Amino acid sequence: MDFGYDDRTRRLRAELTDFLVEHVYPAEPVHAAQVAAAGDPWSRPPVLAELSAQARRRGLWNLFLPDRRYGAGLTTLQYAPLAELTGRSPYLAPEALNCAAPDTGNMELLAEFGTAAQRERWLLPLLAGEIRSAFCMTEPDVASSDATTIATRIVRDGDGYVVTGRKWWSSGAMDPRCAVFVVMGKTDPDAERHRQQSMILVPRDTPGVTVRRGLTVFGYTDGPHGGHAEIDFTDVRVPAENLVGAEGAGFAIAQARLGPGRIHHCMRLIGMAERALELLCRRVAERVAFGRPLAEQGVVREWIAESRVRIEQARLLVLKTAWLMDTVGNKGAHTEIQAIKIVTPAMAEWVIDKAIQAHGGAGVSQDTPLAGLWVQARALRLADGPDEVHRASLARRELRRWATPG
Amino acid sequence: MDFGYDDRTRRLRAELTDFLVEHVYPAEPVHAAQVAAAGDPWSRPPVLAELSAQARRRGLWNLFLPDRRYGAGLTTLQYAPLAELTGRSPYLAPEALNCAAPDTGNMELLAEFGTAAQRERWLLPLLAGEIRSAFCMTEPDVASSDATTIATRIVRDGDGYVVTGRKWWSSGAMDPRCAVFVVMGKTDPDAERHRQQSMILVPRDTPGVTVRRGLTVFGYTDGPHGGHAEIDFTDVRVPAENLVGAEGAGFAIAQARLGPGRIHHCMRLIGMAERALELLCRRVAERVAFGRPLAEQGVVREWIAESRVRIEQARLLVLKTAWLMDTVGNKGAHTEIQAIKIVTPAMAEWVIDKAIQAHGGAGVSQDTPLAGLWVQARALRLADGPDEVHRASLARRELRRWATPG
Amino acid sequence: MDFGYDDRTRRLRAELTDFLVEHVYPAEPVHAAQVAAAGDPWSRPPVLAELSAQARRRGLWNLFLPDRRYGAGLTTLQYAPLAELTGRSPYLAPEALNCAAPDTGNMELLAEFGTAAQRERWLLPLLAGEIRSAFCMTEPDVASSDATTIATRIVRDGDGYVVTGRKWWSSGAMDPRCAVFVVMGKTDPDAERHRQQSMILVPRDTPGVTVRRGLTVFGYTDGPHGGHAEIDFTDVRVPAENLVGAEGAGFAIAQARLGPGRIHHCMRLIGMAERALELLCRRVAERVAFGRPLAEQGVVREWIAESRVRIEQARLLVLKTAWLMDTVGNKGAHTEIQAIKIVTPAMAEWVIDKAIQAHGGAGVSQDTPLAGLWVQARALRLADGPDEVHRASLARRELRRWATPG
Amino acid sequence: MDFGYDDRTRRLRAELTDFLVEHVYPAEPVHAAQVAAAGDPWSRPPVLAELSAQARRRGLWNLFLPDRRYGAGLTTLQYAPLAELTGRSPYLAPEALNCAAPDTGNMELLAEFGTAAQRERWLLPLLAGEIRSAFCMTEPDVASSDATTIATRIVRDGDGYVVTGRKWWSSGAMDPRCAVFVVMGKTDPDAERHRQQSMILVPRDTPGVTVRRGLTVFGYTDGPHGGHAEIDFTDVRVPAENLVGAEGAGFAIAQARLGPGRIHHCMRLIGMAERALELLCRRVAERVAFGRPLAEQGVVREWIAESRVRIEQARLLVLKTAWLMDTVGNKGAHTEIQAIKIVTPAMAEWVIDKAIQAHGGAGVSQDTPLAGLWVQARALRLADGPDEVHRASLARRELRRWATPG
Repeated sequence: MDFGYDDRTRRLRAELTDFLVEHVYPAEPVHAAQVAAAGDPWSRPPVLAELSAQARRRGLWNLFLPDRRYGAGLTTLQYAPLAELTGRSPYLAPEALNCAAPDTGNMELLAEFGTAAQRERWLLPLLAGEIRSAFCMTEPDVASSDATTIATRIVRDGDGYVVTGRKWWSSGAMDPRCAVFVVMGKTDPDAERHRQQSMILVPRDTPGVTVRRGLTVFGYTDGPHGGHAEIDFTDVRVPAENLVGAEGAGFAIAQARLGPGRIHHCMRLIGMAERALELLCRRVAERVAFGRPLAEQGVVREWIAESRVRIEQARLLVLKTAWLMDTVGNKGAHTEIQAIKIVTPAMAEWVIDKAIQAHGGAGVSQDTPLAGLWVQARALRLADGPDEVHRASLARRELRRWATPG
Repeated sequence: MDFGYDDRTRRLRAELTDFLVEHVYPAEPVHAAQVAAAGDPWSRPPVLAELSAQARRRGLWNLFLPDRRYGAGLTTLQYAPLAELTGRSPYLAPEALNCAAPDTGNMELLAEFGTAAQRERWLLPLLAGEIRSAFCMTEPDVASSDATTIATRIVRDGDGYVVTGRKWWSSGAMDPRCAVFVVMGKTDPDAERHRQQSMILVPRDTPGVTVRRGLTVFGYTDGPHGGHAEIDFTDVRVPAENLVGAEGAGFAIAQARLGPGRIHHCMRLIGMAERALELLCRRVAERVAFGRPLAEQGVVREWIAESRVRIEQARLLVLKTAWLMDTVGNKGAHTEIQAIKIVTPAMAEWVIDKAIQAHGGAGVSQDTPLAGLWVQARALRLADGPDEVHRASLARRELRRWATPG
Repeated sequence: MDFGYDDRTRRLRAELTDFLVEHVYPAEPVHAAQVAAAGDPWSRPPVLAELSAQARRRGLWNLFLPDRRYGAGLTTLQYAPLAELTGRSPYLAPEALNCAAPDTGNMELLAEFGTAAQRERWLLPLLAGEIRSAFCMTEPDVASSDATTIATRIVRDGDGYVVTGRKWWSSGAMDPRCAVFVVMGKTDPDAERHRQQSMILVPRDTPGVTVRRGLTVFGYTDGPHGGHAEIDFTDVRVPAENLVGAEGAGFAIAQARLGPGRIHHCMRLIGMAERALELLCRRVAERVAFGRPLAEQGVVREWIAESRVRIEQARLLVLKTAWLMDTVGNKGAHTEIQAIKIVTPAMAEWVIDKAIQAHGGAGVSQDTPLAGLWVQARALRLADGPDEVHRASLARRELRRWATPG
Repeated sequence: MDFGYDDRTRRLRAELTDFLVEHVYPAEPVHAAQVAAAGDPWSRPPVLAELSAQARRRGLWNLFLPDRRYGAGLTTLQYAPLAELTGRSPYLAPEALNCAAPDTGNMELLAEFGTAAQRERWLLPLLAGEIRSAFCMTEPDVASSDATTIATRIVRDGDGYVVTGRKWWSSGAMDPRCAVFVVMGKTDPDAERHRQQSMILVPRDTPGVTVRRGLTVFGYTDGPHGGHAEIDFTDVRVPAENLVGAEGAGFAIAQARLGPGRIHHCMRLIGMAERALELLCRRVAERVAFGRPLAEQGVVREWIAESRVRIEQARLLVLKTAWLMDTVGNKGAHTEIQAIKIVTPAMAEWVIDKAIQAHGGAGVSQDTPLAGLWVQARALRLADGPDEVHRASLARRELRRWATPG
């Protein structure tokens, strides 16, 4: 159980920190101004392309991908402290490094389960940052944390499949560069619970695909990052070779995709909480009310101390989980992945809330990153499974440990 | 200590409930569609004007104003259960009834402290819903909960005053119909702490007034409701008769304005929490996951029970406060006004958070009112004084009770 | 909904406050010393008898009993503020006034459901404070919040009944003066769920009754107040006329008994919280650490403010419940009785915890009443039904309100 | 940052687990019965001596002491998982292994700072478990978390020192076998803040020493473990060679003693929480209410999941702290020691509270270890410095990190 940062990690952390300080933080207000000035809510601010070029030049590119053929070949434990740093500027840094969801998960999926042709057509341009992709699993009419309720159908028809259904929260799909959708649906509703689902690639321009609208998250469209789309698939026909893996393998592939996806979110949340704590500390050191800096007020110190101890605990649990994923595999780390998914969003939400409170009106406005950070943390108490589902599942395992008479 | 609803209150509640069911709730999606379709973020959706006309026709107009000469002449205790109902649809109902902040506070201020000329010029069109107004107190560079830090200057110069300073969170000021700003600044920085400030009326079109930008609250501009403006006042000259009350009376007038303003917010928050609890209950009764309605899961029942008992307690405290304001005056109810300002936003935030969680992705999106309700509740933990300031002040009073040796 | 204190209540509050200040608070250290010096853990400290005599002389006697034939004839709303005051010294005041559980509930039960003979034999000496009684409902082997699980049998046999079973948490039964047990058991296990149980009077000295041991509550025996007994009933034969009410009426009688019992607990908890808040304020005003009184530290002020607003809210809910019990009856107030049972112990526990923390080591020791107060509040999150059962039940009712399609 | 258990740790954990299962858990009811039967509240139950003999025979003795000359020579990181196990039965296991506070801290102190004569006279019999010792730092009249307030005086007088003052919470001192007191007092009140204090050994039978009374913790005397004494030192004269270290070194020695003391407490608290979680899981699996095992109720599962994730996080932070103490020293681990002192007692308190709630009346009684566990956790939110002092100090450090302009 060794969580230490090795030399490569330390070197990459130093380089990434430089990049953040020199390029990313200064780009935050530029990004905000470009977004405000843009007529089209779904257009990509030019500063993002500049950051990407810069990151690529520095070798800070595709760090998330453990597969050496395509990516940096870092272990989960090596990547964790880097992903944490990108979380400090979550609207810019992950995308600048080509390490943003949902593309990361889709690239992993293609690298692991894709055919040579699928990798050629979709993985390579994704790795190059030329196109984007979306992951279409969640549906508006069912409790998507229960995969057996999925209503979208993928029906074999001659040499192809016909996809029919409605998806939402397909993040990134409002971006015109988003070229392909990874769609989960049922090929065999009568099979065993977790063998009913399959995964298929649907090019965006296939007839029958309608991107209906972007969803908001507490008022944000997340437009510059491709938003969150509601998409109709009406008799959408794709060739049979677009299937990812075998028929009935959809649930297993989704699970394989979700493990790393969840820990990446948690890593970045640690960074968000660190950023918020830094902003909180700076603010209360400067701001004076009733004759004293806020920093001298007992309740503010409670916030700071609590924030620090909550962050430290969550980070250790994330690092342990990363180490387990590297040593016993994602399946062996299942309980820990659930644990960090329960712990980290709520921790970050709490810390950011205190930072907002210390900033007064500025904290809820566009003048600090805090409101945006909070919304990301809050959304992650729901995304990739609500807390309650993870807690129920983790408890079931714990109960089994003691099921034998004592 | 009689909090019962009298006949007039009961009758008005029934009428207002009809109005909500028949007109307001059905108008919510219309309003959302009109906002989404509008090119101008600060334009007023036409449906609001229709609701206002309807409300006025039904006699549901200016209910907030206890002054019988101008308003409905209701006591605070009579108005409380009505304001609660308007909180169930806070983006539509208060404005439809001409009972929305900050106009309500400004109308009260003009009715109580304005000269005949000021009332003629500004109060009457406000009462008729023909213009809107803003209240300019908060400043970006100081801790505005400490009124002694206000930096805006109001300097006598011949037969006028010259106003210089920057304000922000001037709600409603982005609305082109917003015709007048009530500005607080210092006329005498050397006077006793609470005699330095004065209040003055600045017509929007006065030279030197620059409405710089709208602020966001989480991702919302609140544009259809006039937004929240940052405003520069650069050597803005207004006639001396624009002063409200005497020189040095600004702090006292602000306090008089804030008491009712705070309780109105709290009343509406009760209604927001009730709406959220209703949505929560309806959702969990319908939504099925893992083979059972969410309503049968223990943790959801804990949420519902806790929500109910928290709402009931907060409402009773608000009603008691209203009763005290009517019987011993705003000053005598000072502690209770602080108490409800501490209790109610946090209560509503908690209830709404649970309703969001039960709705999954729909809860954070534009498809339910919940995300917007949450943002309003969260902002009220800061607006009109952050919780921490109210708690510190309330504790000081409590400590004084026991200061004598025991 | 008028919660005001009427003249009689105000007068009794003044008299009771005098009694507390002049006699009860000074008796607290005397009581502690007598308990410490006693060889027998179940003996009654003499100071209690003196306080009782004094209280009776002042007319502060049997205030709890609404039945004018036997008690003070106060309404629930009139008694609430008095019971609150007795909660300020919960180990002395309720017993001094002959207003302590479980005797109060047993006296109510006998007054309402007892035969003339039962009242003559048991109620009169209880009213005179000459004997004590216990209520035997909870059993060690079943979840007693679910009355259908009760295992104790009451079997008709000739002109008598035979009682067999084990009870625990029979409060007061370790006191040698405790002369009679009110025992709940099943007369007909095959009847409808809530018609299986009956209630019967068992004199302590009946053959087959074995008081096995006293239970502790976080280390306390509550010995001077009769402790909490585990009792075996082995073929205990009593005459048929000892039945209270009809066969099968046990559940209904228990419910009738529990309503007032629960609100009395809640009233006293308000007083406990007030006492703790007073002690907290006095302590932090005096205690200096790191150069400043604790009272000047922000976090302590948060505690005080939060304590005050929580107490106020809980008290209003208790008063509303009392008012409902008086106007629509215990059944009509069922939801509110559950609400205060959920709210009040947790509120008091929170406040007392903060007072303990401010007292350091003294707070957990015998040198302040705080540790004892905390234990009472904590135990009431379980006694008379755990919070979770009340929450589940209250949520069920709330859900029913919205069950119709919306 | 390697927290893994090495071979020696793993072997000792296996042996200690055997010892717990075979001897300690079965001894818990025996211990309770012996305590209940003992006439003298301060007598030591015989079962403890048997457990000690057994532990010593198995080589499970003095594991806490890193000094190889006297103890097991384990690192902090090696000892942590063992101390955790002893926390599972905190009233028996630590003492059985001669690893119980305050003796452990006193033995460390003597090993590190004691003269050869002091070690000969006091350390050797302590290591052999023949005598016990107390640590006299806390005083009733001052805020003992602020060492500068200490009022006890240690005055040089010829070839000796005269000690005068009152101490309390001197744990273990009620045990007749407790032979020596390590007393902290001021030798030079005019010196620099942290050079005023000295530490001196006072044999219990020195004239002028009066052990006045035992303090209770909630309702527990902790009698079988030597209780918690209040002690008067009235002109107590001891030879000059009884001083531990130099004059003025008292504060530094106390700090050196507190670091390991605090982490030992935290390690054991992890074990207490684990024990409570096991009891909780077993209980809810067996107990049926309203037709279903408690384990199937959603809120119980939330408790279990939350308990598990809180325990895991706290353990990792404790292990990291242990690792830091071993690698950079107690001073370098100062922040982390504070962090675990803030986190661990509150975590354990929370978990144990839930276990109590699931057990109903049994949970607060003597029939489970839970009430006792809870009291230990609660007391540790105060002992060795209240949470608030640690939080304020940790926050100060965090603020310093960001003090430079950003």
